[in-house]
Amino acid sequence: MQVAIVGGTGAQGRGLAARLAAAGVAVVVGSREAARAREVVTALAARHQGPAIEPATNADAIARADLVVLTVPFAHAAATVEANRERFRSGSVLIDVTVPVVFEKGVPRLVEVPEGSASEHLRRLLPEQVGLAAAFKTLPAATLGALDQPLDCDEFVCGDSPAARSRALELAGRIPGLRALDAGDLDAARAIERMTVLAIAINRRYHIRSARFRVVGL
Amino acid sequence: MQVAIVGGTGAQGRGLAARLAAAGVAVVVGSREAARAREVVTALAARHQGPAIEPATNADAIARADLVVLTVPFAHAAATVEANRERFRSGSVLIDVTVPVVFEKGVPRLVEVPEGSASEHLRRLLPEQVGLAAAFKTLPAATLGALDQPLDCDEFVCGDSPAARSRALELAGRIPGLRALDAGDLDAARAIERMTVLAIAINRRYHIRSARFRVVGL
Repeated sequence: MQVAIVGGTGAQGRGLAARLAAAGVAVVVGSREAARAREVVTALAARHQGPAIEPATNADAIARADLVVLTVPFAHAAATVEANRERFRSGSVLIDVTVPVVFEKGVPRLVEVPEGSASEHLRRLLPEQVGLAAAFKTLPAATLGALDQPLDCDEFVCGDSPAARSRALELAGRIPGLRALDAGDLDAARAIERMTVLAIAINRRYHIRSARFRVVGL
Repeated sequence: MQVAIVGGTGAQGRGLAARLAAAGVAVVVGSREAARAREVVTALAARHQGPAIEPATNADAIARADLVVLTVPFAHAAATVEANRERFRSGSVLIDVTVPVVFEKGVPRLVEVPEGSASEHLRRLLPEQVGLAAAFKTLPAATLGALDQPLDCDEFVCGDSPAARSRALELAGRIPGLRALDAGDLDAARAIERMTVLAIAINRRYHIRSARFRVVGL
């Protein structure tokens, strides 16, 4: 299993790369600039155990992977997918981590997306033979990046097909301390993205950076 | 503090009535039919400790209470508020528990409400001098009603003013095992209502009835 993390030099991408590599997953960290990817990979290498993380351009990372994790900011998500449309492998799965959030006077607000969610928006832009799942949306970057802290939470995974969903569930389930929950069809991203905004609002109100979710009773 | 539970003869209403009464809160259970309210109160009296729960019509319950908890099905929520518009006490707070959900072939789906959420919809129908908060939306009726089971979860509270929100937070905080979290302005109900639908979907997928949420990292 080869996983590409597109936009992997951001906080969310770095945290996921380190957690996945520590779990034994082969990871390529992609960036628009190859030099920036190399820098980040060098810094990550000092902090995790497991197979070496490789640097690449986003374009090369996408072309090499069966699972492509999209961690660019939402504002760049559509352009990133469109620019690389032809590079996705047939049968690969894009795992969308983006959340359409903006800050108005410090208050996080969801950007209304015509399709209902960022994931449904990206579905329209992807080639048909590429599957789409949503995962890792509700994990705070600060917690992801603190490798000595257990995640100790759940992650909600949805997708445009049972196959795409189950590959994302399997990947999420590889990360210790993370229970991957099947949230069903892709439109569950509407709930999941709003939960992220709610978690950010709770972070701000309670002066923390680590709010995340666990389902009780399961 | 006098709390009315409108539509209190349903599963959610009965569970809340019993949990609140057990916490020492004075509760009136309202129903469209006074006889039905009496029946339910008699059955509840056998199961909880604390001050006596009183039965009433919905109309009388609203007129008597400073806090009115709305637990009718969403399909009846607007009509219930409109029919009783003149009965709300000035300065009282309506706590909306409704979730706009329908089942299509067994799959729970959110009903799209033009205002964005059931709570924002009801805000338009309420007199100005009545506050509105949303709470108790993500608590499963089955768990609420099992009084011997600890809730052991969080509840997300939002409202149209800091005052309405803080009264709902205070009420929710009275229930043992329930941590009431301030989720901010009323539009947070868009996230909270979708979380309920997600919890119902998880219940169905994992064959449970008790999925609810806890925020980790707080």
